[in-house]
Amino acid sequence: MRKNRLRQIWAEGRPALNGWLSIGSPFCAEIMAAQDYDALCIDIQHGALDYGDALAMLQAMRASDAVPLVRVPWLDAAWISKVLDAGAYGVICPMINTRAEAEAFVRFMRYPPLGERSYGPTRAAYAAGANYAAEANDEILALAMIETAEAMENLEAIAATPGLDGLYVGPADLSLSLSQGALTPGFDREEPEIVAAIRRIAEACRLNGIKAGIHCGTPDYAARAIGWGFDLTTVSGDARLIAAAAAGSVARWRRLTEPTAAEAGAPEGY
Amino acid sequence: MRKNRLRQIWAEGRPALNGWLSIGSPFCAEIMAAQDYDALCIDIQHGALDYGDALAMLQAMRASDAVPLVRVPWLDAAWISKVLDAGAYGVICPMINTRAEAEAFVRFMRYPPLGERSYGPTRAAYAAGANYAAEANDEILALAMIETAEAMENLEAIAATPGLDGLYVGPADLSLSLSQGALTPGFDREEPEIVAAIRRIAEACRLNGIKAGIHCGTPDYAARAIGWGFDLTTVSGDARLIAAAAAGSVARWRRLTEPTAAEAGAPEGY
Amino acid sequence: MRKNRLRQIWAEGRPALNGWLSIGSPFCAEIMAAQDYDALCIDIQHGALDYGDALAMLQAMRASDAVPLVRVPWLDAAWISKVLDAGAYGVICPMINTRAEAEAFVRFMRYPPLGERSYGPTRAAYAAGANYAAEANDEILALAMIETAEAMENLEAIAATPGLDGLYVGPADLSLSLSQGALTPGFDREEPEIVAAIRRIAEACRLNGIKAGIHCGTPDYAARAIGWGFDLTTVSGDARLIAAAAAGSVARWRRLTEPTAAEAGAPEGY
Amino acid sequence: MRKNRLRQIWAEGRPALNGWLSIGSPFCAEIMAAQDYDALCIDIQHGALDYGDALAMLQAMRASDAVPLVRVPWLDAAWISKVLDAGAYGVICPMINTRAEAEAFVRFMRYPPLGERSYGPTRAAYAAGANYAAEANDEILALAMIETAEAMENLEAIAATPGLDGLYVGPADLSLSLSQGALTPGFDREEPEIVAAIRRIAEACRLNGIKAGIHCGTPDYAARAIGWGFDLTTVSGDARLIAAAAAGSVARWRRLTEPTAAEAGAPEGY
Amino acid sequence: MRKNRLRQIWAEGRPALNGWLSIGSPFCAEIMAAQDYDALCIDIQHGALDYGDALAMLQAMRASDAVPLVRVPWLDAAWISKVLDAGAYGVICPMINTRAEAEAFVRFMRYPPLGERSYGPTRAAYAAGANYAAEANDEILALAMIETAEAMENLEAIAATPGLDGLYVGPADLSLSLSQGALTPGFDREEPEIVAAIRRIAEACRLNGIKAGIHCGTPDYAARAIGWGFDLTTVSGDARLIAAAAAGSVARWRRLTEPTAAEAGAPEGY
Amino acid sequence: MRKNRLRQIWAEGRPALNGWLSIGSPFCAEIMAAQDYDALCIDIQHGALDYGDALAMLQAMRASDAVPLVRVPWLDAAWISKVLDAGAYGVICPMINTRAEAEAFVRFMRYPPLGERSYGPTRAAYAAGANYAAEANDEILALAMIETAEAMENLEAIAATPGLDGLYVGPADLSLSLSQGALTPGFDREEPEIVAAIRRIAEACRLNGIKAGIHCGTPDYAARAIGWGFDLTTVSGDARLIAAAAAGSVARWRRLTEPTAAEAGAPEGY
Repeated sequence: MRKNRLRQIWAEGRPALNGWLSIGSPFCAEIMAAQDYDALCIDIQHGALDYGDALAMLQAMRASDAVPLVRVPWLDAAWISKVLDAGAYGVICPMINTRAEAEAFVRFMRYPPLGERSYGPTRAAYAAGANYAAEANDEILALAMIETAEAMENLEAIAATPGLDGLYVGPADLSLSLSQGALTPGFDREEPEIVAAIRRIAEACRLNGIKAGIHCGTPDYAARAIGWGFDLTTVSGDARLIAAAAAGSVARWRRLTEPTAAEAGAPEGY
Repeated sequence: MRKNRLRQIWAEGRPALNGWLSIGSPFCAEIMAAQDYDALCIDIQHGALDYGDALAMLQAMRASDAVPLVRVPWLDAAWISKVLDAGAYGVICPMINTRAEAEAFVRFMRYPPLGERSYGPTRAAYAAGANYAAEANDEILALAMIETAEAMENLEAIAATPGLDGLYVGPADLSLSLSQGALTPGFDREEPEIVAAIRRIAEACRLNGIKAGIHCGTPDYAARAIGWGFDLTTVSGDARLIAAAAAGSVARWRRLTEPTAAEAGAPEGY
Repeated sequence: MRKNRLRQIWAEGRPALNGWLSIGSPFCAEIMAAQDYDALCIDIQHGALDYGDALAMLQAMRASDAVPLVRVPWLDAAWISKVLDAGAYGVICPMINTRAEAEAFVRFMRYPPLGERSYGPTRAAYAAGANYAAEANDEILALAMIETAEAMENLEAIAATPGLDGLYVGPADLSLSLSQGALTPGFDREEPEIVAAIRRIAEACRLNGIKAGIHCGTPDYAARAIGWGFDLTTVSGDARLIAAAAAGSVARWRRLTEPTAAEAGAPEGY
Repeated sequence: MRKNRLRQIWAEGRPALNGWLSIGSPFCAEIMAAQDYDALCIDIQHGALDYGDALAMLQAMRASDAVPLVRVPWLDAAWISKVLDAGAYGVICPMINTRAEAEAFVRFMRYPPLGERSYGPTRAAYAAGANYAAEANDEILALAMIETAEAMENLEAIAATPGLDGLYVGPADLSLSLSQGALTPGFDREEPEIVAAIRRIAEACRLNGIKAGIHCGTPDYAARAIGWGFDLTTVSGDARLIAAAAAGSVARWRRLTEPTAAEAGAPEGY
Repeated sequence: MRKNRLRQIWAEGRPALNGWLSIGSPFCAEIMAAQDYDALCIDIQHGALDYGDALAMLQAMRASDAVPLVRVPWLDAAWISKVLDAGAYGVICPMINTRAEAEAFVRFMRYPPLGERSYGPTRAAYAAGANYAAEANDEILALAMIETAEAMENLEAIAATPGLDGLYVGPADLSLSLSQGALTPGFDREEPEIVAAIRRIAEACRLNGIKAGIHCGTPDYAARAIGWGFDLTTVSGDARLIAAAAAGSVARWRRLTEPTAAEAGAPEGY
Repeated sequence: MRKNRLRQIWAEGRPALNGWLSIGSPFCAEIMAAQDYDALCIDIQHGALDYGDALAMLQAMRASDAVPLVRVPWLDAAWISKVLDAGAYGVICPMINTRAEAEAFVRFMRYPPLGERSYGPTRAAYAAGANYAAEANDEILALAMIETAEAMENLEAIAATPGLDGLYVGPADLSLSLSQGALTPGFDREEPEIVAAIRRIAEACRLNGIKAGIHCGTPDYAARAIGWGFDLTTVSGDARLIAAAAAGSVARWRRLTEPTAAEAGAPEGY
């Protein structure tokens, strides 16, 4: 079985860069996979895409070195099973709020005796290569999202769940939940209480020997998060990148081509 | 955020007309959206379609004034989350039988502090416009289906669920369930006990200040339902409309082109 | 090879009823195929669909008795080859204006020695059954559209093309072309000069022992066309049927539910 | 409603042959349906396919005599409802480990009064024909997978579940689970303890008057399973068949075309 | 029929900004359509997309103000007909090298008496609105690409073609062709002979009262082109925008997170 | 730009093995690409697939070493341009019957100065890697099909076309054409006149220093063809492989499980 490069990067003590795929186009995924990301996560939860898109995107990304991750829409055995069989090397599971949920997540991710994943890696056996049954439990990453007040209360118990590989911070939902809806959702939080929560998550990971991941909006915030001990930083994604790039291009064209105030306002008679 | 026209129609004291989409074709949805429906509901539960079709249909309907509703296949957080992020302005959830289920439904539909919806309106932010995070809880409709004997027993408790916007009657399942399978499923029921149940649902809505919706097979039954206090009436849908229209066209052609009995039966020798 | 039911109907001296598919949904095609059409034509020329949709529609219609026809977008060897290999039992080719074009059309439709169709009925061999290579030339229909002034000038030469099975009238384009753009395009023409042209086409078919087909908007016009000698009448299609049916349903609901002028206008104080 | 041929085969005391579809291509399904399988199961659990593919495959298989079965990804009401409405004549449900799960499975499969399936057979009504509401409960098969140690403990209770039509053995998962991960997953087990478990399942079916099914890798093992009392045997599937056939073809070409050792190794100077 | 905003912009004497769509995702198109482009062109010629994608993209863009253009893959009646019927408000046709080709292009684009476009605006009638047949010839833009040495030789004859709305410069192919393959293809040319050719095209447009368009890589070059008299400037497209934006984000992350040379190289013993 | 392995194999004096893809499923393509084929050809001409399928298949095959070839449906600039931009490393063009057609084929395949291919390798630039514009003319294969009597008459002129890389024999069409429809189409011909024609094609290739390819049904015939001087042999394809493999599996099951004549016919009373 092909090795999981994220585990190798971490074994070397380096942090990893993850990209995010919400557009649902295999060709867009292929473009993203041609950049120098360490991993790319297909977001089935909030992305405008479904299993069929994810499968085609995994196929389009197969030739690259980017480790294919998938965020499933919910703690749901069917979704986790299907994306693993489709070849995901890691699953990010949203809304893990209790130890019991974390344990269920691990159970869905692992073959016996570690869990109850059903055997049938139909495409994964092709994409991941020989010996999948024996090595999948070791290679594939199970990352639980911490993004609610309830999860923060159960943080240590969740972080200590056997078989879990890491926690992943969803700053938008975490801010919404911790503030009881008062904060506007978004990434790259600066509120002291949110930063404190985020750092507490990294610390819980360190104490339990697991990895800490976080969703960021900029490379700069990601660099700070790495300073706080994070091992996996997601820096924006395809939908945001293209919206920002196109908006910038349009704005520049408008600025360059609009008549100056003087020209525009000059009385015609002169 | 674009306003929900259904709320505006209701604020004016008028009933609303909903159409139903089961065919799963974006172009068919575009044709339906060109008619004068107040809302159109994409039926993922029983329609021959999936999330990917629903997304494309939402995109194809975006230019119209019809409010895009989606019926999810089940009380399932993943489905509700995905159709909301895809831009639905209302969700019809089948088989809400208890207060606890109604509360879970609301929880999946609303951002904190009203619920636990996860933040990430990837496409919705484009289709619905600015300020989505702040206004979505107010604009988007949560409609619970009442369609079993159990739900009728819990009707008042369900109708009183905080955050629920309305109840929606599924007459086919309701008839099946109330009759223990004795009645043939279908719309536009005339059995006194079913009519009584339907009217009781409208009354429960009125008492709790929420909206009442019902699935009908004809405009005429819909008009009667409005007389009973219903605010939202679905009148058939794409699959039934085209089947009936094509059948009628074929029948007329056959009638016009078949030889008369006299001609057909006349002995050839004459 | 499964027999072409259109040829059987014609052998019995009966006219045939064709339906039209523009929506591009396999499920919609399945609904149409459940009605009593003798044939159904997938319109790749003007329909909102492509080869992939046509293939799926042919698969969805396979269980029905309706003969699967396809209108290709143009006199193009690639398109004709692909829809035949996908299982079409007849091709309607638009814009055949000269004898040379009619001959090219036949050449693209037939295996040697009658033509130059390339062999490889990948799906057709499954859908049509054994002995395809030997019988396809006899079963499959080649129908050339007559829809321009130029085609009318060459009508007799076109109708006499060896291997052609029939002519098919496109009344909208024919009216546009004959009137040099002065007439509004549409079906069911009543202008004497257009009716005369249409009848001349039927007569040319009769004289050459081939079939005459025509696109109609109503069963009633189709019945008249049959009286003029037409053998194949298309009566509207999925997109028009559903638009009309939905519009009628909506209009009736609006009429039944709108307050009367009196009610609406009554001063609130009364 | 079209009859379920599997029930007819069993009524005649014959075993049935099932094929397996993991590739997710309607044309591949059409090719498989042209072979002489009694049934074909679309595997949504481990196959590289989704609801949309399954719908198209069901449409492509409709013209054949093969009974269309679907394996859903999990014991999930939404999935079961959707594949039934799409026209499945039987559902294989994985990971049924307790009597309560078996009862839930039956409940999701049956209309009242036997269960709680919601009414709306949008496509099934076309594919299965008239009287679906009244006959679906009798025709459609509910097959529960026995594939864990826990299920073996509850075997008799599961087999006795009212409304269940049969048990289906998943040998790969059963071996993994019974051996606590020590055995390599796969079909056609020879280990005495696994064979004993498999035979115990067949016996539980016999005692409860329900059918026994099993997933096999070869016709030969299937024949042995029939000797043990199995009624339904799956013999490999599309993905494995094509991989093996292609590998064999390639190997033969390589053998035939490679220079012999003598030729290859002969020093050029001689 | 909805007016063509490009014609309105030009009537006001302003240049227009066009965006380019090569990714083939309706959601990506929706994101692009949310930016402030005057028009967006779906590139079927070189984009990783087909008719089906283009149709879905046109539907997804319908709610925006961006004028939907399509570049067809070749001077081909079928392609031009299909994209017009799908709702394009303008067609960019590659490789128009002679007056005869320009005339054929116009003929394919226009209804009689101006051309020979076949009538059947199946989707366009919905997207463009009432009176399509009468107004389409006036609203829809026919833009011929000038991109070869042969086209430059025939430039004046092509520019004078009746019914043509404009010329569109493909700088990459034009450079390749004029240099006989010596120049590396790309946009934003600075070679004097290429700039001269580009300016000669703008001048030919001006003399014939038609519009001049050009493909650019940057807003800055577009502004210069506007200075040369160009009316329509394309500034990069989705595939290039996202590749550049992602590459920039990754590069910044790598720079921020890599250990400094000092740190990296420091002997471990210190 | 990634090198074309077929050229490397031929440079080493070895023949190459090609597989054939008609099913149109990216996952099926991925399975085929995991076998040891030197090249795999996506058949858009006769396969049940379109551009969109081909694109997804090219993406799914990218991680393998198999050289991706595409057979276009016809000598058509649009098709050739689109499959090249999608990343094909070779094009097989059917029905090249004259020197002029062969020259047009080369022209569509090559950038200036060798041809008139339009520049815009949108996906190819990702799949093939850097320096595509400069190296594509050298790496990509142009293979013309010889499959008619007319082509045989022009064989030497076609084989001598500058820029052509090889001829590819379509034995089914060639047999049909040479026999004027008398021979049943198929591969692996034994008729002396057909074998002679096939060998004459190989000889023409040898004399002109280009490669000879042929479509075969078995490895054994392929080995013979290699003996005749062929460099590229296609050995069946996905649709035939799976049909044969499934038929064999079913037949064996039937044979193993059917009661013996004795058992079946034995009177029950005995």
